[in-house]
Amino acid sequence: MTIKYVQPGAWNSRAVIHGDTAWLSGTVADDKTASMKDQTAQILAKIDSVLAGIGSDKTRILSAVVYLADMDQKDAMNEAWMAWMDKDHPPARAAVGVTLTPGTLVEIMVQAAV
Amino acid sequence: MTIKYVQPGAWNSRAVIHGDTAWLSGTVADDKTASMKDQTAQILAKIDSVLAGIGSDKTRILSAVVYLADMDQKDAMNEAWMAWMDKDHPPARAAVGVTLTPGTLVEIMVQAAV
Amino acid sequence: MTIKYVQPGAWNSRAVIHGDTAWLSGTVADDKTASMKDQTAQILAKIDSVLAGIGSDKTRILSAVVYLADMDQKDAMNEAWMAWMDKDHPPARAAVGVTLTPGTLVEIMVQAAV
Repeated sequence: MTIKYVQPGAWNSRAVIHGDTAWLSGTVADDKTASMKDQTAQILAKIDSVLAGIGSDKTRILSAVVYLADMDQKDAMNEAWMAWMDKDHPPARAAVGVTLTPGTLVEIMVQAAV
Repeated sequence: MTIKYVQPGAWNSRAVIHGDTAWLSGTVADDKTASMKDQTAQILAKIDSVLAGIGSDKTRILSAVVYLADMDQKDAMNEAWMAWMDKDHPPARAAVGVTLTPGTLVEIMVQAAV
Repeated sequence: MTIKYVQPGAWNSRAVIHGDTAWLSGTVADDKTASMKDQTAQILAKIDSVLAGIGSDKTRILSAVVYLADMDQKDAMNEAWMAWMDKDHPPARAAVGVTLTPGTLVEIMVQAAV
């Protein structure tokens, strides 16, 4: 089964497709001054864009891990998540607190069906 | 290939099935006053229950990430894990220390064959 | 679809193969006194070895999560990662800071095509 690389870069690809499953890289917001809610919304828009490029979309996300730099702001992340998520297609998910690079408040890694 | 949602909720599903792979959400214990060992045992019982509902079981878990709020209690988690795990079917696993919501000592996210 | 266990141990397998996907356990370096860069190189060599044992290799890694005990040393991890990674086959990846067992500076968990 062939493997397809989407936006391959110096140390990772934006996504790797194997069969009918796409493995996306952890995605972060470009604007590090944005709030937790806004960084989350920016990330989810970037994920939408990557998925659109491979013939998938947010209704086909299988699983997500949300890495938060500050668990006290989990509710703010969830506001953006719930505004975005398709109500009929909720993926599996975990949300945990980790250390991220300075300014990055949240990073999201998903797997999707293609 | 169709995607099936198990116990879909406001921001995630308990599990999402795609082909012959099930992606489960991070699972936590209901009793936040329980010890690390007991929270782990509660989680593993909940995972058993989700897997039973989709025609799978712990002998078909492929991979697990164990998120611990306190790495000093990793041995206590492992006691419950080893009491539960089928000796002939050990999944891939990583166990790392993160920040979880208050009272939650451990969260486990697994993928399983169905 | 059968599930194959590679180097099954007391609480996990080194890898679990399901169909054409291999789920590897989190891998750490044996030498806990080594630097971040050297621990990363040791881990990647161990991953190479596991993949070789199942008829795969680093050009078929789909996704990786790099767990770092010290995000300030992410660049040192990346030095070893980029020296090792096949430039034509960059996997999806996330790198996040967590707590690991004492002496362990980095742990890497990958999924690969077989």
